[in-house]
Amino acid sequence: MTTPFASEQEHQPLKVALLGCGNVGSQVARILLQDADSLAARTGARLELIGIAVRRLEAPREVPLPAELFTTDAESLVKEADLVIELLGGIEPARSLIQTAIAHGACVVSANKALLAAEGPALYEQADAAGVQLSYEAAVAGAIPILRPIRDSLSGDKITRVLGIVNGTTNYILDQMDSTGADFATALAEAQRLGYAEADPTADVEGHDAAAKAAILASLSFHTRFALPDVHCEGISSISAADIEAAKEAGLVIKLLAIAEKSQSADGLAGVSVRVHPTLLPREHPLAAVRGAFNAVFIEAEYAGELMFYGQGAGGNPTASAVLGDLVSAARRIVLGGPGRTETTTGQVAALGIDQVQTSYCIGLTVTDQPGVLAQITQIFATHEVSIETMRQTIHHGEAGEPSYAELRIVTHRAVESALASTVQKIRELPVITGVTSVLRVEGI
Amino acid sequence: MTTPFASEQEHQPLKVALLGCGNVGSQVARILLQDADSLAARTGARLELIGIAVRRLEAPREVPLPAELFTTDAESLVKEADLVIELLGGIEPARSLIQTAIAHGACVVSANKALLAAEGPALYEQADAAGVQLSYEAAVAGAIPILRPIRDSLSGDKITRVLGIVNGTTNYILDQMDSTGADFATALAEAQRLGYAEADPTADVEGHDAAAKAAILASLSFHTRFALPDVHCEGISSISAADIEAAKEAGLVIKLLAIAEKSQSADGLAGVSVRVHPTLLPREHPLAAVRGAFNAVFIEAEYAGELMFYGQGAGGNPTASAVLGDLVSAARRIVLGGPGRTETTTGQVAALGIDQVQTSYCIGLTVTDQPGVLAQITQIFATHEVSIETMRQTIHHGEAGEPSYAELRIVTHRAVESALASTVQKIRELPVITGVTSVLRVEGI
Repeated sequence: MTTPFASEQEHQPLKVALLGCGNVGSQVARILLQDADSLAARTGARLELIGIAVRRLEAPREVPLPAELFTTDAESLVKEADLVIELLGGIEPARSLIQTAIAHGACVVSANKALLAAEGPALYEQADAAGVQLSYEAAVAGAIPILRPIRDSLSGDKITRVLGIVNGTTNYILDQMDSTGADFATALAEAQRLGYAEADPTADVEGHDAAAKAAILASLSFHTRFALPDVHCEGISSISAADIEAAKEAGLVIKLLAIAEKSQSADGLAGVSVRVHPTLLPREHPLAAVRGAFNAVFIEAEYAGELMFYGQGAGGNPTASAVLGDLVSAARRIVLGGPGRTETTTGQVAALGIDQVQTSYCIGLTVTDQPGVLAQITQIFATHEVSIETMRQTIHHGEAGEPSYAELRIVTHRAVESALASTVQKIRELPVITGVTSVLRVEGI
Repeated sequence: MTTPFASEQEHQPLKVALLGCGNVGSQVARILLQDADSLAARTGARLELIGIAVRRLEAPREVPLPAELFTTDAESLVKEADLVIELLGGIEPARSLIQTAIAHGACVVSANKALLAAEGPALYEQADAAGVQLSYEAAVAGAIPILRPIRDSLSGDKITRVLGIVNGTTNYILDQMDSTGADFATALAEAQRLGYAEADPTADVEGHDAAAKAAILASLSFHTRFALPDVHCEGISSISAADIEAAKEAGLVIKLLAIAEKSQSADGLAGVSVRVHPTLLPREHPLAAVRGAFNAVFIEAEYAGELMFYGQGAGGNPTASAVLGDLVSAARRIVLGGPGRTETTTGQVAALGIDQVQTSYCIGLTVTDQPGVLAQITQIFATHEVSIETMRQTIHHGEAGEPSYAELRIVTHRAVESALASTVQKIRELPVITGVTSVLRVEGI
């Protein structure tokens, strides 16, 4: 049998440096040691873990690992390595260490979505110039192979839209609210108790984590570099049990989606809208069935049509799976020769601001029950050229002495975000309006 | 901005030969011509379609294409090409033409599952030896990127099980039977009317198409070459409306699954079972929600956990998307240098025969309603060391003059297939048994 892994190449040693030894890093180290033989067989190289850089040598570890592997001198470790796995998170010292690794000719595997969303372009250029591979499958949607399919498998197609559930914490919270009727605070506390949410949950619940992933997904999908400032971001902390209940009644479910889509602004500029916000989805949509802390990415492409990728978005072992996939690919590339390639930037489309996006609103209102109210409201929609798709009115008859009032639920057709926002603003100012109970965007219909 | 596509490399011409111009081929040709500029930008090479080999020049085409591209001399066309797209299907002349292409140093993209399942290993070896790429993403599950994620993204993980809905025709038929209560013949006729099933539906409904895909999935997932004779294959033509109804009542759905799983035979031999058969799945299983002619592949891996890939499994444009993804990847590889790589065979695990597999049966029986019947039946299970998970009995009281009888529905725990089969055989021989109405395997519980 002929294979490119001739015996003299077999078990060529490659030095692996691991930066960080938390939840994911400790599993990566364990698997590198435990599966050494099968990884060598699959890679054509012996992946030698030469050291693990940590901040504190004496910190407790989830997995027993040989003490002699640990070091606090990350800089020296990186300079010796052929392959560097960066699992530190945050901007510094991760960025400097990756730059040192690339400068020394090492391939880099990173799961650092914050760094890549903020500083990715400079790092990709540096890696391309050095002819080394910088891969980061684990940075988006944990174990789910999503970046490689977008970059390679769909490279002959044209992606038109990406909708992703890319934050397990918020999906768990929204799913709990949906299935138990709990309010946000209760569901968050439960998520914290189970370890799905951190003590300070801001990065998750305010959508910052999802926004970093949206920037990375958009960059690969549209062959254009998008960074965090290009991403409009709203979190889920304002979602109420009533919002969830109303969505349920309408056959919808609320999900925090990372969205990147080809779009046209009001003045006809073609571009890409990248945004994260709570979104109403029909319950039959494939993403609606993604429960608990799972992640999924739904892609629409011109030729492939609809695709969905589903799996675990976080956790030590699932994320380690993605890290090791990148590591084995980089090692194979070193063994077989040939340069790596991180991304392409042949698209060069504009990032559209949230104001320019075409979207659809679901607006919940309470109004005084008197003649002419609906006419006043619909007139405002007409003035802003926002067309109403459905309107549902529920009259509440007041008890003795109380005035009666009505609840309105209006779903619009797709319209420019700025027109929708001004419509809502004008409606708020109407004297007959007693409350705007919710304003949520709708997708998937 | 530094990129490996320096200007002197940009638009390096690569000659593309297309073999076959049916449903998929005509869309591939259209996209190659129509998207030439954006493909060049993404690839770093100008993909020049130099010819389309067809059997009959005058055959009608779905898409208008320049007449001068067509030729009946496939052999000469292949010898001129840098990249060959084989969409002929069947063994010959596809095999000889691929061999000629490889011998002339061309990279090959094929969607020919029958050829790859039958003769893949010899072709992969030939391609590896020649240092060219042979890719075949379109051969399994159409537009869904599944082979590349298995081969590359999960290369550092260990896949334990693959369950795939990889034939849209049979999924459409079973879904119709499930949603409308139609019998097999009616649902098949409807599928034929809509173009989902061919006039001779044998390859689809008897599972042969799925079996070829199962062999390819198993080979990549377990780093071991499996061919068609390693695949146990049962189709769906014997599934009755009553089977579907009974499954529904039990909260299950019947799907034709391609299964490849790590397993242990009765005598402790570790190996892989590769099989295609109608399978009962719980309605909550992610694969149960795959409707109509869609495809999906569900993967269980040691570290990643559960993953699912969902999308369109057939059709001109979706399959063309997968073909073009392979083509762009192969072209990038040529532009950037470095050898291709089709598969790895470092696993070398045994293919287990269907007799050796551990599975679980759902058995439907009708029995005469008399004392001691259940004891006789359960005794047979005990003798064969097959343990019963659930048993449900429905007594039908006979009308005037007719004897009463009972329907039994027995779900077993996982047991060796041969023990299950002998149990059913012995039960059939019991005089109290008036009928064995269905025997189906259960997964996903």
